[in-house]
Amino acid sequence: MKKVAIIGPGLLGASLAMTLKKQGESRVTVWARRAEAIEELLGEGHADEGFTDVGRSVADADCVVMCTPIGAMRTLAPAIAQGVRPGALVTDVGSVKMPVVHELAALFHPRARFVSSHPMAGSEQSVMKAARADLFEGAVCILTPTESADPLAIDELKQFWRKLGCTVRQLSPAEHDEVVALISHLPHLLAAALVTTVGERGPDAIAFAGPGFRDTTRVAGGPPAMWSEILRSNQVAVRKSTEAMIEKLRQIIKLLDATSDSAMHAFLTQAKAERDRLPPLV
Amino acid sequence: MKKVAIIGPGLLGASLAMTLKKQGESRVTVWARRAEAIEELLGEGHADEGFTDVGRSVADADCVVMCTPIGAMRTLAPAIAQGVRPGALVTDVGSVKMPVVHELAALFHPRARFVSSHPMAGSEQSVMKAARADLFEGAVCILTPTESADPLAIDELKQFWRKLGCTVRQLSPAEHDEVVALISHLPHLLAAALVTTVGERGPDAIAFAGPGFRDTTRVAGGPPAMWSEILRSNQVAVRKSTEAMIEKLRQIIKLLDATSDSAMHAFLTQAKAERDRLPPLV
Repeated sequence: MKKVAIIGPGLLGASLAMTLKKQGESRVTVWARRAEAIEELLGEGHADEGFTDVGRSVADADCVVMCTPIGAMRTLAPAIAQGVRPGALVTDVGSVKMPVVHELAALFHPRARFVSSHPMAGSEQSVMKAARADLFEGAVCILTPTESADPLAIDELKQFWRKLGCTVRQLSPAEHDEVVALISHLPHLLAAALVTTVGERGPDAIAFAGPGFRDTTRVAGGPPAMWSEILRSNQVAVRKSTEAMIEKLRQIIKLLDATSDSAMHAFLTQAKAERDRLPPLV
Repeated sequence: MKKVAIIGPGLLGASLAMTLKKQGESRVTVWARRAEAIEELLGEGHADEGFTDVGRSVADADCVVMCTPIGAMRTLAPAIAQGVRPGALVTDVGSVKMPVVHELAALFHPRARFVSSHPMAGSEQSVMKAARADLFEGAVCILTPTESADPLAIDELKQFWRKLGCTVRQLSPAEHDEVVALISHLPHLLAAALVTTVGERGPDAIAFAGPGFRDTTRVAGGPPAMWSEILRSNQVAVRKSTEAMIEKLRQIIKLLDATSDSAMHAFLTQAKAERDRLPPLV
């Protein structure tokens, strides 16, 4: 991509800008609500130009990447659709797809080619300060094209994310939302539930925590506003996965009550086998 | 301590041997069931001598550290009590205290001075190969002396763990077991429950997992035999904390069903505040 416009330099947007500038093959334009955020990115050499006017920021981009929360995406999309160069590729990095992709696809069609993306990268920090040029290295990026998406646009977007270091996979928007409810939204709720359950025992229990507790609860440090929006946006699938978790914990209580350890041992062996299937970190 | 006997060079025992030898102030003797394990430690310079006879391994130790699983500890303790030098300090690193400490304290009294320890260190790997000299650096070590424990022995043991890099705290055996049910045993069950819930959706969901899922489920890769013994040994407290977690998840479902995001936002804010209380990694 010769020219990439990044809408919203939070953790993902700023990391994307850094990585593209480091690779040196794209001109990077950023849009931010605050002029200070643009100044900071320009000062660090992570972008070539920036605007607080969204129409100007996308005017001659080959590719527009929307990196704001879902709510802001909806607000900004009409101005992007109006200002974008005809034929440009437009994507987003939103965590939930069903509530927005069909609306956005209709809004951009036929002027620009919209295909939605979800790079499974990030950290419990959402701010620009946490941005890093290796954030996408080895991450899975899920593309969720609608049925009417342009196959060429899908291919171009796959190349775009691969070049950033991602492994690209494809799911329908509905499948995506079910999968992320299980592998991202439910884990967030579990971490939050665990840390508050421990906290309610009194202020001291957490002081004894070891590295296991630290890792298990890391994501609970994420920004509450972003996460309540994500959970709301994927309410049906998250509710279903939380119910499945409650049912699983009920089964575990039966294992704890059993007179023999063999069923618990079998359950933990199955869990270990599932966990060991996770590909090693690159 | 001039001479330390380590009973069972698994992850904790071997890491303890390595650290003591690296610090260079103690002579280290190991007991292992298999002669090959002893050979390996001697070959690497992580111990000065080793025996497959437990009585010989403790004969002239100032301090004996039992690092086997709880079951093996019970089996070996009588021979240790018989063979140990009068007045020696004896401890263990077991994960559960109530089922064993009173029995062990009675067994060692009055010949040796027994005080139980639980260094909150380790990883999902239990094998000697994962041992590292920095395993205890910055870890919390909980001492759980019985009411009749010798105050001088408690002080000596505190110094022992501090020298290895631990922050030392003290709880009664019953308090210890309730705290670790919450901060260690429940997190293990949650990780196992999460990874199997995701696995049951089909073999592919896990392939999309990002770093959050990886961290949240890391402990589920731990050894099933060790963990089913731990969960069995702490059944009452683990059951109670699992029930508390189910109740918390039921409350979360109400937050998901609410028409406004404000209660979910408040809950996630509370969770983040609790998580942010975790002291930073050293």
